Amino acid sequence: MSIFRPSESSLDSIREPVTQELKKFDGVFREAMRSQVALVYLITRYILRQKGKRVRPLLVMLSAKLCGEINDSTYRAATLIELLHSATLVHDDVVDDADTRRGFASINAVWKNKVAVLMGDYLLSRGLLLSLQYHDYYFLNSTSFAVKRMSEGELLQIQKSRQLNIDEETYIKIISDKTASLFSACTDIGAASTTEVPEKRNLLKAYGENVGLAFQIRDDLLDYLGRKSILGKPTGGDIKEKKLTLPLIYALHQSDRHEAQQALRFVKKGAKQKDVTWIVDFVRKNGGIEYSLQKAEEFAANARACLSSFPDSPEKQSLLQFVRFVIERNS
Amino acid sequence: MSIFRPSESSLDSIREPVTQELKKFDGVFREAMRSQVALVYLITRYILRQKGKRVRPLLVMLSAKLCGEINDSTYRAATLIELLHSATLVHDDVVDDADTRRGFASINAVWKNKVAVLMGDYLLSRGLLLSLQYHDYYFLNSTSFAVKRMSEGELLQIQKSRQLNIDEETYIKIISDKTASLFSACTDIGAASTTEVPEKRNLLKAYGENVGLAFQIRDDLLDYLGRKSILGKPTGGDIKEKKLTLPLIYALHQSDRHEAQQALRFVKKGAKQKDVTWIVDFVRKNGGIEYSLQKAEEFAANARACLSSFPDSPEKQSLLQFVRFVIERNS
Repeated sequence: MSIFRPSESSLDSIREPVTQELKKFDGVFREAMRSQVALVYLITRYILRQKGKRVRPLLVMLSAKLCGEINDSTYRAATLIELLHSATLVHDDVVDDADTRRGFASINAVWKNKVAVLMGDYLLSRGLLLSLQYHDYYFLNSTSFAVKRMSEGELLQIQKSRQLNIDEETYIKIISDKTASLFSACTDIGAASTTEVPEKRNLLKAYGENVGLAFQIRDDLLDYLGRKSILGKPTGGDIKEKKLTLPLIYALHQSDRHEAQQALRFVKKGAKQKDVTWIVDFVRKNGGIEYSLQKAEEFAANARACLSSFPDSPEKQSLLQFVRFVIERNS
Repeated sequence: MSIFRPSESSLDSIREPVTQELKKFDGVFREAMRSQVALVYLITRYILRQKGKRVRPLLVMLSAKLCGEINDSTYRAATLIELLHSATLVHDDVVDDADTRRGFASINAVWKNKVAVLMGDYLLSRGLLLSLQYHDYYFLNSTSFAVKRMSEGELLQIQKSRQLNIDEETYIKIISDKTASLFSACTDIGAASTTEVPEKRNLLKAYGENVGLAFQIRDDLLDYLGRKSILGKPTGGDIKEKKLTLPLIYALHQSDRHEAQQALRFVKKGAKQKDVTWIVDFVRKNGGIEYSLQKAEEFAANARACLSSFPDSPEKQSLLQFVRFVIERNS
């Protein structure tokens, strides 16, 4: 899954309706990670320091407040999600570490890998025990299902990137599983913490799913548009990793066969920077950028529609603003 | 945690009372890992091929049969444990891979790491969803607690191996958490699948904890005695990894200060083969081997005592035989 770290300023106004609750959440979360083992304590402090933007707890809180009154179970829902998210980040570090280490495996790196795997498992078990203690089985089920979808989605993407054949339908299935699943778990269990009404829960769950799809399409698009944070040049990171995402999938489908084969040859052999430039041009020329923008907007519209039956409120405005934020962000 | 793979022949007679049930379990377990994603399917087939000795399902089945009639929930208990165990093995591969790769990180190795982490998470989520589907909350709680203890125990051991100060009490705490926890989860949920009587569950749980402690002490001892499978020479693997285990801890405590400091210097600088020989001699001379044998026997006696109130049966005989097997094994 992509790590979603939007810029601080743009989220401030979205956070407004639940500022106090997010502050309280920080304390609850810290408490949930506590351990007698000094090494565990050290690492959890490290995790707390680089805490990111707390987007997932934000979605939990806003969904909860939209459907009712935030209560203790809302904090547990947010804690479960954030423990799970921290676990996957820590596990991702194992992978990234191997990737960037580039052939240099020091004893320290090995130690780091082992600790990362163990810490991930530790955080996960803390989340499970918390939910079991309070009989939060609905939360557990929703998040376990998200973990299954996330891992299956990522594995399907790896499989497809090796085969280099992927159509739009498969692409949507992959990003739905690997990314949208966790967004929809956030909004689902947030709602479930404050309402018993199945329709409300389902609407919030669908909101999360659609906003997640829009998010990932935008994320994949930024690989072709360039990100603000890295001087605005398209990096083509996905291309180099042989990941076929929507802009390229669409362009391959639209272009003549000769050009499409050339593009695939570049991807297959491991594209260099000048091949990336060629592929980005190829995608642009064949309408891949515009099509992806349009698709992201479609899912964004679906997400907004899920909220239409709720009366207006600061929470609703924030959730609507979040949709816009997701499809307009440049980093 | 150590990977427990006893030799096939010695377990055959222990398995006898539940041979049919273990056969049926194989089918249930295969079914539980099923996935539509071809890559996942491939890896699960790989896991099924190198299936090991199924010691954990064996303990679940024997404990269940000792307390009542094996039923569907017993198979689910065994499946949860084996999914969890497979997940930790797959995650361990990440670590081992980094360790043995020795500075060579091919794209393939990176891909392997990523897939290993994802597969571990996938297997775990399947276990969770299975238990949630059938409301097996007792199983879930017991195994989640075991995961917490396993990861904390391993992390404490890593922390202590960096500090090189560890007393017997801390050692027992570490092996109890990292190894005995999963044994006791097996026997606990096995019993829970066939009896509601808390005393029976607690006795089986305590049996698992004690047999797990005896197992790990024997395992650590084999590092000093030499293992049959590797030509009988003490490998000193733990020493080289700076792990202080019971034989050395005891010897350090018994010897004069000068010798103890010499031993610690060897461990600290990263012991070579001739240092290992010196340390093994040092341990022998100071009674570390005998003391560890005696400690393993103590925990084995505790384990046996947990079974004394149960009437005699083939299952009881197998569980008693298992205790003996654990403390006598040479590989």
